[in-house]
Amino acid sequence: MADQDHASLPAEGVFELGDMRLESGVTLPKAAIGYKTHGQLNAARSNVILYPTPYPAQHGDIEWLIGRGKALDPDKYFIIVLDQLGNGLSSSPSNTPAPFDRTRFPVITIRDDVAAQHRLVTAGFKIERIALVAGWSMGAQQTFQWAVSHPDMVERIAPFCGTAKTTPHNVVFLNSARSALITDVAWMNGNYQEQPVQGVRAFSHVYAGWAFSQPFYKQELYRQLGFNSLDDFITGFWERRYARRDANNLLSMLRTWQLNDVGGTPPFGGSLERALRSIKAKATVMAGQTDLYFTPEDIEADAALIPGARYQVIPSVWGHMAGSGLNAVDAQFVDQQIKALLGT
Amino acid sequence: MADQDHASLPAEGVFELGDMRLESGVTLPKAAIGYKTHGQLNAARSNVILYPTPYPAQHGDIEWLIGRGKALDPDKYFIIVLDQLGNGLSSSPSNTPAPFDRTRFPVITIRDDVAAQHRLVTAGFKIERIALVAGWSMGAQQTFQWAVSHPDMVERIAPFCGTAKTTPHNVVFLNSARSALITDVAWMNGNYQEQPVQGVRAFSHVYAGWAFSQPFYKQELYRQLGFNSLDDFITGFWERRYARRDANNLLSMLRTWQLNDVGGTPPFGGSLERALRSIKAKATVMAGQTDLYFTPEDIEADAALIPGARYQVIPSVWGHMAGSGLNAVDAQFVDQQIKALLGT
Repeated sequence: MADQDHASLPAEGVFELGDMRLESGVTLPKAAIGYKTHGQLNAARSNVILYPTPYPAQHGDIEWLIGRGKALDPDKYFIIVLDQLGNGLSSSPSNTPAPFDRTRFPVITIRDDVAAQHRLVTAGFKIERIALVAGWSMGAQQTFQWAVSHPDMVERIAPFCGTAKTTPHNVVFLNSARSALITDVAWMNGNYQEQPVQGVRAFSHVYAGWAFSQPFYKQELYRQLGFNSLDDFITGFWERRYARRDANNLLSMLRTWQLNDVGGTPPFGGSLERALRSIKAKATVMAGQTDLYFTPEDIEADAALIPGARYQVIPSVWGHMAGSGLNAVDAQFVDQQIKALLGT
Repeated sequence: MADQDHASLPAEGVFELGDMRLESGVTLPKAAIGYKTHGQLNAARSNVILYPTPYPAQHGDIEWLIGRGKALDPDKYFIIVLDQLGNGLSSSPSNTPAPFDRTRFPVITIRDDVAAQHRLVTAGFKIERIALVAGWSMGAQQTFQWAVSHPDMVERIAPFCGTAKTTPHNVVFLNSARSALITDVAWMNGNYQEQPVQGVRAFSHVYAGWAFSQPFYKQELYRQLGFNSLDDFITGFWERRYARRDANNLLSMLRTWQLNDVGGTPPFGGSLERALRSIKAKATVMAGQTDLYFTPEDIEADAALIPGARYQVIPSVWGHMAGSGLNAVDAQFVDQQIKALLGT
């Protein structure tokens, strides 16, 4: 670690948070958050973009949105990619010692994620204003929360393909993925020495049905990703996608996702509507037209509660993955929308 | 068994088919098909309705559509409810002796189902004309196949919430349910002595996300079914729904579902379009507006290929279960459509 007292943090690293009191009341000792920066902080410290990771990515996995000429342009902006708690780089079941290791890792909320990120941004980088928070999926959840928790700090938000509160159907889907994983006896209630390979594979199979749309599969668009058959796609894309993740990390972040609710604590007292109406940031809220779990209907309803928000549908049959950067057309749509927002 | 040579079959029973050569080329010895009849065959033998079971039901599970004053009125019609192969009453992994027991049970296609049913109807009941075939979900698959395989015998069809060919996305969903089940070590590659309870539970959790729609869960419509919470619904409805089924039977019928394709054999040579265009029956084809796996788009495309078919959307947020009879409004819609078809 670089000396954290002098705001001279390295471009990529893990920032020590010390003892972190979580929303649950539990204190997580020696908490830490991973990150990576792109570009340079300007003298006015006014060119900051936060880009939190989605489930279950790490900061190196989502760089498609960053680049010269893109919305997240490192020639113009100081972009901080923020690792979610539980993702294996930030404090996680896989890297936390007893008594908070494995399934003993405490319940994390999206507000806990944002609290850790806020600490990194303010205490670590000495930043007080955020030009934009942008994020896909669970990244969108964190984006909404940033605008709710820090209304005077965040100038713009671009949450895409995520809701401000997890819907009951989404809970059901996630429970089914969890259920498939923990059915593997090799999971051993989280106390595995070797990853529960079969369980994670079943988890990936459940995910495969939800993350792309029905027409995506009918039109065999996985061929655009280099797969020649449905079987190859399930194995080469989906099984590989999760095989490299720690099972307890997957389950921890899944729980965080299920609990997401920007109105879930004071001062909003459980009112999603009051929380969203409190947002001061300029907002462009995007939904994937064929997203099966963060549905356009649910996202549009969120957007309607944010004062002045623009709601945009990504016209795509790539389902939830319309916001993943996997195909150039959808990636460009998202990029253009964020550029337009940054221009305001 | 009653004497099968005299068409004096009992109203409920299992009809012996003898050695049955399947589409796969395998001969299943001592095959049998379960059924139950309602009403009386008229003298002209012209009042016959066939009502095949959906996944993974048995004939007693789907009687909601039958009753005095309903479309399937036993005062007017002779209704034969037909048990699918694999459902535990007809020949199935659970009731077939070695060498075709358990996972050795042969691959069954929807055409095999219809062949077994045709034998029961013609050789058992001496019936040569069918006024209507009606079925939901996998029952719809069999309904389409009846019209394709026996165009001069079937006068009307009412397939609802099912497609004439299983879509790739549907294959993915079903594989995920299968994957969840077989992850249970207690499945023992099908050689269990006790049912793999955890695996079947995980299977049911996957199903829960697909069979009802996102708004069904958001609006908590499971309260109409007597459940006071989401957890109660998952346990009391979904876990119970599959816990009473044999795991190998579930997997056998799942494979049948995945393979469904009315155009899959000569004379259609793989052409869904040619198969559907060959249908002579008057058809009313229904789709659930929010069905996530037998989507309205897919069903409408099927209906468009059947000469003269009427396509009707069940206006419902009950997802695939719009066709299950679980709620009175949707049940009445389906009933009215079938009544109208029978009146032509």
